[in-house]
Amino acid sequence: MMPQLSDSSKKYTVSVIGASGYSGAELTRLLLRHPNVRLQELYAFSQAGKQVNDLYPSLSCGKSYLPYSGQQESDLYFLALPHGEALAHVPDLLRAGKTVIDLSGDFRLKSTLEHEEFYKQKKSPDAVMTYGMPELFRDRISQETSISNPGCFATSIILGLAPLFLGESGPIPLSAVNCTSVSGISGAGRSSKTELSYAEMSENVRAYKVGVHQHTPEIMQALGSSATTPSFDFTFTPMIGSLVRGIYSILNIRLGSPEKTETLKRIYKSFYRNAPFVRMRESMTEVRHVAYTNYCDIHIAQATETGSVVIVTAIDNLLKGAAGQAIQNMNIMLGLEETTGLLL
Amino acid sequence: MMPQLSDSSKKYTVSVIGASGYSGAELTRLLLRHPNVRLQELYAFSQAGKQVNDLYPSLSCGKSYLPYSGQQESDLYFLALPHGEALAHVPDLLRAGKTVIDLSGDFRLKSTLEHEEFYKQKKSPDAVMTYGMPELFRDRISQETSISNPGCFATSIILGLAPLFLGESGPIPLSAVNCTSVSGISGAGRSSKTELSYAEMSENVRAYKVGVHQHTPEIMQALGSSATTPSFDFTFTPMIGSLVRGIYSILNIRLGSPEKTETLKRIYKSFYRNAPFVRMRESMTEVRHVAYTNYCDIHIAQATETGSVVIVTAIDNLLKGAAGQAIQNMNIMLGLEETTGLLL
Amino acid sequence: MMPQLSDSSKKYTVSVIGASGYSGAELTRLLLRHPNVRLQELYAFSQAGKQVNDLYPSLSCGKSYLPYSGQQESDLYFLALPHGEALAHVPDLLRAGKTVIDLSGDFRLKSTLEHEEFYKQKKSPDAVMTYGMPELFRDRISQETSISNPGCFATSIILGLAPLFLGESGPIPLSAVNCTSVSGISGAGRSSKTELSYAEMSENVRAYKVGVHQHTPEIMQALGSSATTPSFDFTFTPMIGSLVRGIYSILNIRLGSPEKTETLKRIYKSFYRNAPFVRMRESMTEVRHVAYTNYCDIHIAQATETGSVVIVTAIDNLLKGAAGQAIQNMNIMLGLEETTGLLL
Amino acid sequence: MMPQLSDSSKKYTVSVIGASGYSGAELTRLLLRHPNVRLQELYAFSQAGKQVNDLYPSLSCGKSYLPYSGQQESDLYFLALPHGEALAHVPDLLRAGKTVIDLSGDFRLKSTLEHEEFYKQKKSPDAVMTYGMPELFRDRISQETSISNPGCFATSIILGLAPLFLGESGPIPLSAVNCTSVSGISGAGRSSKTELSYAEMSENVRAYKVGVHQHTPEIMQALGSSATTPSFDFTFTPMIGSLVRGIYSILNIRLGSPEKTETLKRIYKSFYRNAPFVRMRESMTEVRHVAYTNYCDIHIAQATETGSVVIVTAIDNLLKGAAGQAIQNMNIMLGLEETTGLLL
Repeated sequence: MMPQLSDSSKKYTVSVIGASGYSGAELTRLLLRHPNVRLQELYAFSQAGKQVNDLYPSLSCGKSYLPYSGQQESDLYFLALPHGEALAHVPDLLRAGKTVIDLSGDFRLKSTLEHEEFYKQKKSPDAVMTYGMPELFRDRISQETSISNPGCFATSIILGLAPLFLGESGPIPLSAVNCTSVSGISGAGRSSKTELSYAEMSENVRAYKVGVHQHTPEIMQALGSSATTPSFDFTFTPMIGSLVRGIYSILNIRLGSPEKTETLKRIYKSFYRNAPFVRMRESMTEVRHVAYTNYCDIHIAQATETGSVVIVTAIDNLLKGAAGQAIQNMNIMLGLEETTGLLL
Repeated sequence: MMPQLSDSSKKYTVSVIGASGYSGAELTRLLLRHPNVRLQELYAFSQAGKQVNDLYPSLSCGKSYLPYSGQQESDLYFLALPHGEALAHVPDLLRAGKTVIDLSGDFRLKSTLEHEEFYKQKKSPDAVMTYGMPELFRDRISQETSISNPGCFATSIILGLAPLFLGESGPIPLSAVNCTSVSGISGAGRSSKTELSYAEMSENVRAYKVGVHQHTPEIMQALGSSATTPSFDFTFTPMIGSLVRGIYSILNIRLGSPEKTETLKRIYKSFYRNAPFVRMRESMTEVRHVAYTNYCDIHIAQATETGSVVIVTAIDNLLKGAAGQAIQNMNIMLGLEETTGLLL
Repeated sequence: MMPQLSDSSKKYTVSVIGASGYSGAELTRLLLRHPNVRLQELYAFSQAGKQVNDLYPSLSCGKSYLPYSGQQESDLYFLALPHGEALAHVPDLLRAGKTVIDLSGDFRLKSTLEHEEFYKQKKSPDAVMTYGMPELFRDRISQETSISNPGCFATSIILGLAPLFLGESGPIPLSAVNCTSVSGISGAGRSSKTELSYAEMSENVRAYKVGVHQHTPEIMQALGSSATTPSFDFTFTPMIGSLVRGIYSILNIRLGSPEKTETLKRIYKSFYRNAPFVRMRESMTEVRHVAYTNYCDIHIAQATETGSVVIVTAIDNLLKGAAGQAIQNMNIMLGLEETTGLLL
Repeated sequence: MMPQLSDSSKKYTVSVIGASGYSGAELTRLLLRHPNVRLQELYAFSQAGKQVNDLYPSLSCGKSYLPYSGQQESDLYFLALPHGEALAHVPDLLRAGKTVIDLSGDFRLKSTLEHEEFYKQKKSPDAVMTYGMPELFRDRISQETSISNPGCFATSIILGLAPLFLGESGPIPLSAVNCTSVSGISGAGRSSKTELSYAEMSENVRAYKVGVHQHTPEIMQALGSSATTPSFDFTFTPMIGSLVRGIYSILNIRLGSPEKTETLKRIYKSFYRNAPFVRMRESMTEVRHVAYTNYCDIHIAQATETGSVVIVTAIDNLLKGAAGQAIQNMNIMLGLEETTGLLL
């Protein structure tokens, strides 16, 4: 929280570093109409100098992308940079007393070992910030001036599992979790790779990074476990399919002892009773239910007599999985209503 | 096998009952250019009277759909009817000495109990025919005059699991299998449901029938187990996504004791050494690799030290998952080369 | 204008009749967050009784669809009904002093002859309301209590041609206009037709109603001409393609004498100088530039020495082509800022 | 025709230069199963050294791409290279007595002026080969040993217009032709451009090169006119849409004097009476009718009393628009049945 800025009608000045990618564009869209924000600068690197309106005509924004060289004019900075690049800018911003929300993976993991194994990048042990998942850590977030915003797959999976691990009456014993997720292609960023071209990805589905995706340690850490010394068997198979936006996760859980569907629903509803963006769904959810929204829909699809549970979650990867959640964190940090500017 | 028809240059007369759906159209396409077939009649019900060329202009076929009222002019009949409708026609055809390949679920399950639970339809105990999955039951198929052709999801899952259950050196002990599959929308048939319209299904993913899909008992039966008294924990979550053709299955397997990836590869390669349509892939497979082909691609994606295995399979649901496999069965039954007319 | 309601902070009560289709859902979305509106009732017919949230989970709206039997509780009514059905409700609403915006074709055409030829429905000569295209008729709209909202194709074509016909310095002589438009499939409404299923429309383009589309007379009327006695040669070829939202129109115009591109740009910019939702684009426009916005983008793509001109326009068919334009009309009628609630 | 090779059961040796792009892959697919062909080498440049099966797993072909350095081992060579690159290889092949079919634009245009204006590349006046459109120039093609294969847009437009220009009873007077075409994205080649990525092109339509597309002079030349001194007003607006394969062309024609639809149908049917791959359609055609086939479907959609005519054509851009037509030319040149290997 920025205590000096508690008046809900006040306008906070905000800039975005790395504004020209898909997450940055989505942040721009949300910030342009946020009632408590005055959007100042949009910084970019390869796209610096270009007009926002040329890259994203749907934004209809008169600004240009500026090169970033350490400017500090705003109250709050979002960083939407490729992994490894936020590290160079965050410390200076924090020293200058700025509020920072970083959308990369640079500050998510406490374990240097796991960071280096999964990101293949060096990391200093103190490059950690509070994990900005409001449904789990709202109180802590409200006390912070810097936040590491969760990954998109991680959001869809953690929200689907958290009530089992972090519920009031303690963790439900379980022995295995197998996650299979389909992501929209925008999750790969604004890209010029042949393998992400329309001609290759239309009418297609492809798994990738099976067992080695960098969101694995992030998921385990948020659930109070670890990717290197897991307390249960965990696999994660990410896929991309023929869609631009959305993540759809199928969570196969093996409980220590069976639970009835109704019991699980009660646990989940209680856990999310104060979460305005989590919707427990009685019927099956699907990607189009959450596309262009900040909701995470959760449906408990199966709970067998032998303890097998299937849970389905859906989010928009660019909103609840990135820019929307970042704004949600900003709202909490600034003492605003959590949903401000996010009920589309 | 039809012993009277062993000459490989001979033309067999073939008709299709239920020819106007997507599987029927794909059968028509394949039969029109099969070197050992003379396609005689295309029978349909709601579409009877219409020209094939009007419903499927890409077929460029001069025939019309005829109503079926028990005609028996051909050597061999394919039935591509909705579940529950083949039952009325198959016995008469068999009595008349015809060769029959049925693409519905009517004759797949030995267990009346499981059939009635999963299909919600009555069934007599003797309505069972040999299960037409050539990679598992080629010899038996070659002796038969009637075959029940496998389901599309079932094909993609059984082929991905069979070497673990039916390999030469006996079954590999395992405790759980979680299957998650994305299917193309053509799997739902030629449909006028709002929920399958382009406006609802573009950029979408949706799970359905979680834990209750009718291919569940078929899969268990083919693997030597049972849906009602399973010997291991089994879940199956089918999804449809924004694609017309293809099934992509992620198989999460929990082995009794860990196996190395190389060991598994050896087991799979050995099992499929004579299977011309199964391709073991060293790198990740994807739907477009198999679209418009009769191949099933299998990739062993992960095998952990704790015994978790992730296997990925891909097929074209209308070919290896329906019409292509049916032609493959026909070739075997007629004593022809298994790949005849199927190397597209 | 409703003179009794001139205070811009006042909330007007609004209901929608025919709220369960795609245009109705888009109206609902816009009205729910419009700062000067209190959304009262959502009326539907075949979907009456269902919860909004079940049909459109992305709306996250607690309301249910009610059957409509003449209720008159609101200040203003939107009607988003199939053609021919608004006629039964509008007169009563007007008699009761309600403000009415009708999205159907029932009140668009002055010519009974043309209405009956193109809609194949009877019509009385007085079933005409002011044509709600703000860029052409803003002043008249601001004086009205009932408005007929334009068709989607018509909007994309009229806005691309109007400066040539209705510009300040009089019409530019021209001999022919050939319009070719690609529409998203949502333009066909929430549908259960096989020909609009995903399996039929993915990776497809199809023309339909060539020369007989009901927007033809609407276009000619707005331009001051007529479909039955046209003052220039006019053809219109509508198509649907593999997209949900958007209309992309290519307008081939044959001028009486050549004009330079720069002259045309000047004419268009002048004509639209006060139009907040028309954007003259220097570079090529495309559908994704306007999707999910109320903008109409116009690009003058070619102007040859022989007088051939090619103009390209893009809109979102559900917004500027339907619900967005309806809200724009409402704003003008209520004396609000034209863009209120529409800058997404 | 290669007179020395008239035996229809003989196998001709064939190689492809530039085999790794989409047209090259489609040629490979067709040649692998062509009954009169023995496919020898697949030459590539940036992809040289890679296995065919890695780039195109659906081909299931054991070959690797070889670098091309002037090899001349085959009877016949297809060149599927970017514009400007065939020029370096064709003369040597012709000198060595090889049969050559070039899919680029290098040898299509007689006018050096037009070539240099539209291709922005230098050209020598003798770099012209017979234009390989069998429906127009079958006899000439059958006498040739080298052929320039038509462009994809050009094919869809020329076939839709040719009967008006080149019919038996002489040209039908006309004053203007406006062509608007939607192409699948594979027409842009195997690409890594951001603007062709799935995230940018899903649910999109975009025009490009309006009035300056390089197929313009090719179309005019084939119709006996010229792009620089046209005998009628001609515009061409190419678009790409959200589909991989297919070209859909809307041809707006202004006749000198009106013709009845029936008269036009008679003219077209007569013109194409010996063309096995042109189908005159009584009802509307669409892309999926011709996808994965070598057909060109033509539908006469409108013919008004004032002489406006709308004709709709559909082809698969990779087949009739590239590789399929190239094989059709090969069949004619080799004295084989024109449809050999092309009835899919």
